[in-house]
Amino acid sequence: MVHHGRARPAAHAVPAARQRLPAPHHAVAPSARRGRVMTRALPGVVSLLTDFGLSDPYVGILKGVIAREAPGTTVIDVSHDVPPQDIELAALWLEQAYTWFPPGTVHVCVVDPGVGTARAALAARAGEHWFVAPDNGVLSGVLAREPSWEVRWIDAGALRLSVASRTFHGRDVFAPVAGRLASGALRLSDVGPEHAPTLHARRAPRVEKGEAFGEVIAVDRFGNLITNLPASVLEGEGVTVEIRDARLRSVGTYAEGELECVALVGSFGLVEIAVQNASAAARLGVGRGEPVRVVRGAP
Amino acid sequence: MVHHGRARPAAHAVPAARQRLPAPHHAVAPSARRGRVMTRALPGVVSLLTDFGLSDPYVGILKGVIAREAPGTTVIDVSHDVPPQDIELAALWLEQAYTWFPPGTVHVCVVDPGVGTARAALAARAGEHWFVAPDNGVLSGVLAREPSWEVRWIDAGALRLSVASRTFHGRDVFAPVAGRLASGALRLSDVGPEHAPTLHARRAPRVEKGEAFGEVIAVDRFGNLITNLPASVLEGEGVTVEIRDARLRSVGTYAEGELECVALVGSFGLVEIAVQNASAAARLGVGRGEPVRVVRGAP
Amino acid sequence: MVHHGRARPAAHAVPAARQRLPAPHHAVAPSARRGRVMTRALPGVVSLLTDFGLSDPYVGILKGVIAREAPGTTVIDVSHDVPPQDIELAALWLEQAYTWFPPGTVHVCVVDPGVGTARAALAARAGEHWFVAPDNGVLSGVLAREPSWEVRWIDAGALRLSVASRTFHGRDVFAPVAGRLASGALRLSDVGPEHAPTLHARRAPRVEKGEAFGEVIAVDRFGNLITNLPASVLEGEGVTVEIRDARLRSVGTYAEGELECVALVGSFGLVEIAVQNASAAARLGVGRGEPVRVVRGAP
Repeated sequence: MVHHGRARPAAHAVPAARQRLPAPHHAVAPSARRGRVMTRALPGVVSLLTDFGLSDPYVGILKGVIAREAPGTTVIDVSHDVPPQDIELAALWLEQAYTWFPPGTVHVCVVDPGVGTARAALAARAGEHWFVAPDNGVLSGVLAREPSWEVRWIDAGALRLSVASRTFHGRDVFAPVAGRLASGALRLSDVGPEHAPTLHARRAPRVEKGEAFGEVIAVDRFGNLITNLPASVLEGEGVTVEIRDARLRSVGTYAEGELECVALVGSFGLVEIAVQNASAAARLGVGRGEPVRVVRGAP
Repeated sequence: MVHHGRARPAAHAVPAARQRLPAPHHAVAPSARRGRVMTRALPGVVSLLTDFGLSDPYVGILKGVIAREAPGTTVIDVSHDVPPQDIELAALWLEQAYTWFPPGTVHVCVVDPGVGTARAALAARAGEHWFVAPDNGVLSGVLAREPSWEVRWIDAGALRLSVASRTFHGRDVFAPVAGRLASGALRLSDVGPEHAPTLHARRAPRVEKGEAFGEVIAVDRFGNLITNLPASVLEGEGVTVEIRDARLRSVGTYAEGELECVALVGSFGLVEIAVQNASAAARLGVGRGEPVRVVRGAP
Repeated sequence: MVHHGRARPAAHAVPAARQRLPAPHHAVAPSARRGRVMTRALPGVVSLLTDFGLSDPYVGILKGVIAREAPGTTVIDVSHDVPPQDIELAALWLEQAYTWFPPGTVHVCVVDPGVGTARAALAARAGEHWFVAPDNGVLSGVLAREPSWEVRWIDAGALRLSVASRTFHGRDVFAPVAGRLASGALRLSDVGPEHAPTLHARRAPRVEKGEAFGEVIAVDRFGNLITNLPASVLEGEGVTVEIRDARLRSVGTYAEGELECVALVGSFGLVEIAVQNASAAARLGVGRGEPVRVVRGAP
């Protein structure tokens, strides 16, 4: 499926200099463009986001397959500690991470509870990035953000993929397709027929009459509570953020909340609740899904 | 020691297109072979499998040494979360992972309870892959699988390795030798004299009169129980897998076992016991070493 | 600030062949120097040491930014499991790790409790290595070890860095500067004005009248207790190491301490307390900060 619509306003910070390069296999090294070295094909970048963990050899095997398909590719781990089968969190991390990668990066996301069933395997282009993932909604955040995208169904038979197992399509389908896209050996148009992807509507925050209602959508390693509320709800003087029984003031940076939990705009451009050098999640005893309310007036 | 014997039948799935390249230092980029760029030496691939964990700087130091010895090498982590000194599990992960890497990859495996003692340090070629590891049986699975191999004892003195410590041969011996093999600066024949490696016989499954007896040899992050039983024992109609007090049916893919534990052929070509979106290990209360029996007849 | 002083004697093992290359952007591939391939700019090496953990996408985002700024750079993780805000341990790991990397490596250390405050962001050269880190003492170990160094304050405005957040300078400041230093696009002299860095004095061990007093400064994954006592205190016959209620003998390698805790010189050139194939930390019930005393006489 090809989509040329209007993207919703990006809630997150956008990298400064987005280079406009047409496709991974046309990318050239910046130094080449400055005339320092001869023009040559640039090995691509592949990012990986899975729920495989790092204890078992599964991630290493993915990378072995990519090294076989596309020697010299730079492979970057976004995370492999997505809780097993947690499509919603994977969609969030993918949406928040991909814009910081070079244009032309192929992002592989394998959180795949339906592996081996009839669910489709997808390859997609959205904006200047490529994606390879099962058709289970994990691309929802990315596709909601990009005005222009194209999604295709991976036809494993036509691509002569050797699908050796019904339980590890990361190895047998997603990694080889990602490697071939990154190396330029495969074009998106040759992956398979167009496909209408599964899209999950995210529970959007509600803003009305100077109040905003959202929720905690992730808790990071530091115990910071990441909400789905955009930065704009903290604008202006005298804002209070309510969560559980706490009423928090809005500050500019973590260091202002040494003894108390505070609310601030985090690195994804979303409201976060934090306490300096400690865990707000532990302090407040809350986690994902906890309602958050922003009201006018000092705490 | 050089071995040209008959390999046992591979129980695992074999990658489709195994390129036949002679040695890491002769490898050329596929694109070069298609005439797109000039022929050049291809930086090699090194895989790492250790029990070092990722919290301490030990793995980073290994990679620093490899970057020093062989700039541009692609280094891929198989796992660093092998339980400390667990040679048996390391041998299994290595055996299951290496075939998915490019021919010519140098696989470094440092699970080394005997570091600093008289145990030999080994470099080996087995089939199209290279290996560097202590002589403690960790290569047993690989050498049992490959019909042709050559194992040599690393003569640190002759190689002028600066062995700065008696406790970290990963840094002082294995990483530099791996880097030199990957870059082509060192040939296997120059590593040191031939050596008869320590080989551990794995407890093989027993198949008789339509029954098969095996055991759980690993539990992965998802709680899937990986057994040493080959896929063939699940062939045919009406098979029941017994473990502890449970009698399980055989299915094709994880998604068929939503409410119950099931048995299926996993990605290594071995029988696995799983439950969809949950942990079979937790559900059944079993772990490594648990006996598994396959019998004819519906559960 | 530029410093040309006398470094304290290095307590740690020093790699054998330290190549003398002038700067990351002048580095050439060793093979080029041997005339095998044409001279070309060598993509640099960047090491990463943070307290970000590996579950969240923060480390992946850092690497995405580096891949954008400096395509082809080799990025190596030293550790991301430094306990949150633990500057002291990060300084130790950095000091012990960096010498094993290629000359010209850019080491990024982001343990940054003061992010968003007025604390400076630093770029530095020390010996043959480059460093990028907040000005909070995390470079203390490195700067104490190197006789010659230069530290500059990162002028984000002059460098036209797009500092999108006040909470993630790893992404917005440190990664882009590291990438530009590694690629040669930025010279240290152009980073910003010279700066006198925050230096933390480490609690040094005390050696007097044949006795030595130190402490445990880190516990590694294996439960080995790493002390701040130099190897020299174990020299000679008949040395006893006292910790809590235990009196330990000095040995050469882990394998000599199968049933008992022992003291030995570890891979950092420091006294370690260990027990073979088990955790000395668990056995002795001690952790970081525990006093250690070395006395003459058998245990």
